[in-house]
Amino acid sequence: MIRITIYNEFVQEQLKTKKFDFQKDWGEESVRWGAERAEEIARAHEGGAIHDTLKKIFEECEDLKVCHTATLETQEEGLSEEVLRDTDVLVWWAHIAHDQVSDEIARRVRDHVQKGMGVIFLHSAHMCKPMAELLGTSCTLRWREGDSERLWCCNPTHPIAKGVPECIFLEEEEMYGEYFDIPKPDELVFIGGFGGGEVFRSGCVWNRGYGKVFYFQPGHETYRSYFQPDIRRILQNAAHYTANPEMRLEKLECLPV
Amino acid sequence: MIRITIYNEFVQEQLKTKKFDFQKDWGEESVRWGAERAEEIARAHEGGAIHDTLKKIFEECEDLKVCHTATLETQEEGLSEEVLRDTDVLVWWAHIAHDQVSDEIARRVRDHVQKGMGVIFLHSAHMCKPMAELLGTSCTLRWREGDSERLWCCNPTHPIAKGVPECIFLEEEEMYGEYFDIPKPDELVFIGGFGGGEVFRSGCVWNRGYGKVFYFQPGHETYRSYFQPDIRRILQNAAHYTANPEMRLEKLECLPV
Amino acid sequence: MIRITIYNEFVQEQLKTKKFDFQKDWGEESVRWGAERAEEIARAHEGGAIHDTLKKIFEECEDLKVCHTATLETQEEGLSEEVLRDTDVLVWWAHIAHDQVSDEIARRVRDHVQKGMGVIFLHSAHMCKPMAELLGTSCTLRWREGDSERLWCCNPTHPIAKGVPECIFLEEEEMYGEYFDIPKPDELVFIGGFGGGEVFRSGCVWNRGYGKVFYFQPGHETYRSYFQPDIRRILQNAAHYTANPEMRLEKLECLPV
Amino acid sequence: MIRITIYNEFVQEQLKTKKFDFQKDWGEESVRWGAERAEEIARAHEGGAIHDTLKKIFEECEDLKVCHTATLETQEEGLSEEVLRDTDVLVWWAHIAHDQVSDEIARRVRDHVQKGMGVIFLHSAHMCKPMAELLGTSCTLRWREGDSERLWCCNPTHPIAKGVPECIFLEEEEMYGEYFDIPKPDELVFIGGFGGGEVFRSGCVWNRGYGKVFYFQPGHETYRSYFQPDIRRILQNAAHYTANPEMRLEKLECLPV
Repeated sequence: MIRITIYNEFVQEQLKTKKFDFQKDWGEESVRWGAERAEEIARAHEGGAIHDTLKKIFEECEDLKVCHTATLETQEEGLSEEVLRDTDVLVWWAHIAHDQVSDEIARRVRDHVQKGMGVIFLHSAHMCKPMAELLGTSCTLRWREGDSERLWCCNPTHPIAKGVPECIFLEEEEMYGEYFDIPKPDELVFIGGFGGGEVFRSGCVWNRGYGKVFYFQPGHETYRSYFQPDIRRILQNAAHYTANPEMRLEKLECLPV
Repeated sequence: MIRITIYNEFVQEQLKTKKFDFQKDWGEESVRWGAERAEEIARAHEGGAIHDTLKKIFEECEDLKVCHTATLETQEEGLSEEVLRDTDVLVWWAHIAHDQVSDEIARRVRDHVQKGMGVIFLHSAHMCKPMAELLGTSCTLRWREGDSERLWCCNPTHPIAKGVPECIFLEEEEMYGEYFDIPKPDELVFIGGFGGGEVFRSGCVWNRGYGKVFYFQPGHETYRSYFQPDIRRILQNAAHYTANPEMRLEKLECLPV
Repeated sequence: MIRITIYNEFVQEQLKTKKFDFQKDWGEESVRWGAERAEEIARAHEGGAIHDTLKKIFEECEDLKVCHTATLETQEEGLSEEVLRDTDVLVWWAHIAHDQVSDEIARRVRDHVQKGMGVIFLHSAHMCKPMAELLGTSCTLRWREGDSERLWCCNPTHPIAKGVPECIFLEEEEMYGEYFDIPKPDELVFIGGFGGGEVFRSGCVWNRGYGKVFYFQPGHETYRSYFQPDIRRILQNAAHYTANPEMRLEKLECLPV
Repeated sequence: MIRITIYNEFVQEQLKTKKFDFQKDWGEESVRWGAERAEEIARAHEGGAIHDTLKKIFEECEDLKVCHTATLETQEEGLSEEVLRDTDVLVWWAHIAHDQVSDEIARRVRDHVQKGMGVIFLHSAHMCKPMAELLGTSCTLRWREGDSERLWCCNPTHPIAKGVPECIFLEEEEMYGEYFDIPKPDELVFIGGFGGGEVFRSGCVWNRGYGKVFYFQPGHETYRSYFQPDIRRILQNAAHYTANPEMRLEKLECLPV
């Protein structure tokens, strides 16, 4: 059994009914944008939050179990030492409140990955603190909402690509384009091509210590990518691939010999 | 001074007026295709052959000198031991007569690259014998004539990308698409995105022994890509990058110590 | 069930009692060396040939089955198209008769690896023809018989290192030293350190098409490395890792789309 | 002209005559160790500090200029925004006071590397904060003082290895051994082999954004490695290789297009 913890920021889903601390100085236009976004997300995610959508994806596999869900508001308990110690793979979706995650938690996630926890960063999580801690680059990119994507597999024997066709068409997806400022991937699995002509290293694996990091670009909050069976399969494969429960270290230290 | 040798198959350019041995069993349709192709190439290359076009690109740089040109018909003398020993960078364009290059020459090229000669394989040269000898994979791909390409730089500090914009638009280019069956590039410099939605690892570097290999996808025979200044700059950069005249070995051998 | 084929040159084992074609111009000293070597191998391998030793290693695992064994003298039938098509992992041990393997067989092996067959090259097989075909470099190195080796794992989560201690001491092993002229490994698993102070990339993985290549340096013919449990475990792990029976292609070709 | 800034912790050099804040709870034995270490360093470095030794290495090259030197005590001004903006290559030597460098400075260094500054981390700097920020791994290792090292080049055409013999013998060096918990190097240049049998990836390059990171293991404070001409050559080569003054960015940001 692979134990999964999902962190979903869970901010945009609530912007119609709730105001967060970091919104203090949001102007009228931002507030209106937020309310509309909340409605769009609700439509795309069938009334649920993004973590509900993700949970169902993983729980299609008998050997994957979502044990914990954390959000921006519950980050302290939801991503505590105890929770991460019990987590084989952490899944991270976030977008507009990266700065509201504490540095301490970002480093806690990094430390657990180094000791063997897998982590999957989704879509706009490319700018989240734990990913920056693990990769060391800015992870900046070009972007534009409202495009379509073809996701091409450039590594057909990779475990994350198992059972996935050579090309997946996403009728609606946010364009993320190169230059994507990441370290050279240890394993490049997917390259995305967008309707507007841009390309992107959309599926990348890096090893960090005893843990594996997978970044996967599809998954804009208002689109239906996560409901497409091939995308679901990729996420399930990624959970299996990044999990390494047999080799979880207590600590990493320099040893005199 | 970097000494360049250009191998251009120089077959399609002549198909209007000449028949090659390997065409013995070409049917009427193939012959007609050949004659048309010859005309199209002449138009695209301003009356010259592809090696004339390439020669002019390199000779825009004062420190690059095209010392030799070889073709399918002159391969024996044109790619002799003496010529390759005098070559810092070999440039290879070929398409329909890969099999007509002798195994001996393919291995001679491989051996010189291993001992420090640079090599640039262009466009349809992805299936040529020396590239197979050096890479060890099938180099197969998807293709379609008559598309457009956007060439994106995913490695902006790479010497081959020096002075080149983040995106180069090629109004006409042959689509080459993933899965491109190559070894993981040591350095991935460009990714192409095509009008039809396909993507391709269009600019790749591999180290082989003391030599460097650069594969560059643009350059279909009937299009004008090689006349575009940014593409010319990339080829010039690649000649500088793959040349290593200071470290040319006499031989590689196992040494007892 | 993973189906393994072992190629062992099986030349040195017979040099006491038999003369091979390629020995025609061997002088007296070479003949004497051969006879002594045969005796030493018999001692180290408990009276059997190297392929007997290897067979027993793989057959310690219930899911590994050695279906075929080929030698220099039986290469034509032993490594036929039919045999390779039935092989999930090919294991190659060879030393003094690399040139006696036909180019056709070397390319047949290369082609099957590209289509998904795993291959494990052992020790002096670093100079064999199929490895050259797959890697494209000279694979030259420094060497000296009669040393000891410490084999260090520099990739502790790699499947080939599973269950293996961080250091394996080999009291007797042939020194293979850098510069080892190989392409940058896709995965570097072990680095050897020798009594004489040399170092070597002793365990390396490369992907070639749909197949995986593992090179593993220990295994000099007259030493007992293959009888050490940790070395056996590495070879068993490597067979599991390089096998990919689910993705064996019929052919690789360029496809118009 | 390449502008270099050297950060040397400059703590151990002063431990005979001075007490640092972080030593508050040092026991008698630590104090005695410190005094002895100060004497040993003075002997090894000819009466100077480690930054004096390093400065002289770079200033052997006409196009390298050490413009700034910073120490633990002067880190605020010595590694200010202004200083780093004026720095093409930052050289970092540190050992016992990594924690005394502020997080802010560590991130400032990381940010400047991402925007194009080169950085060279020396020896015990493997545990310094900026290296952790850039690499994302623990950088832990095995160690033992009082060994000898042979430094082997496994990448003979790499610019950092230019003019350097295939093996450099260091009569006295601290053993650093695998497993070294680093991301897979983009370029592995040197592997060290130690008298005690250990091995280590001693010279590694990673690209991070527009900047290059070089880690180089030799350089224990009480030994004479930095006075050996081949080691000096490597450091000079590394300064040239990691410098990229032509491509220094003002900022890295996500851009809507």
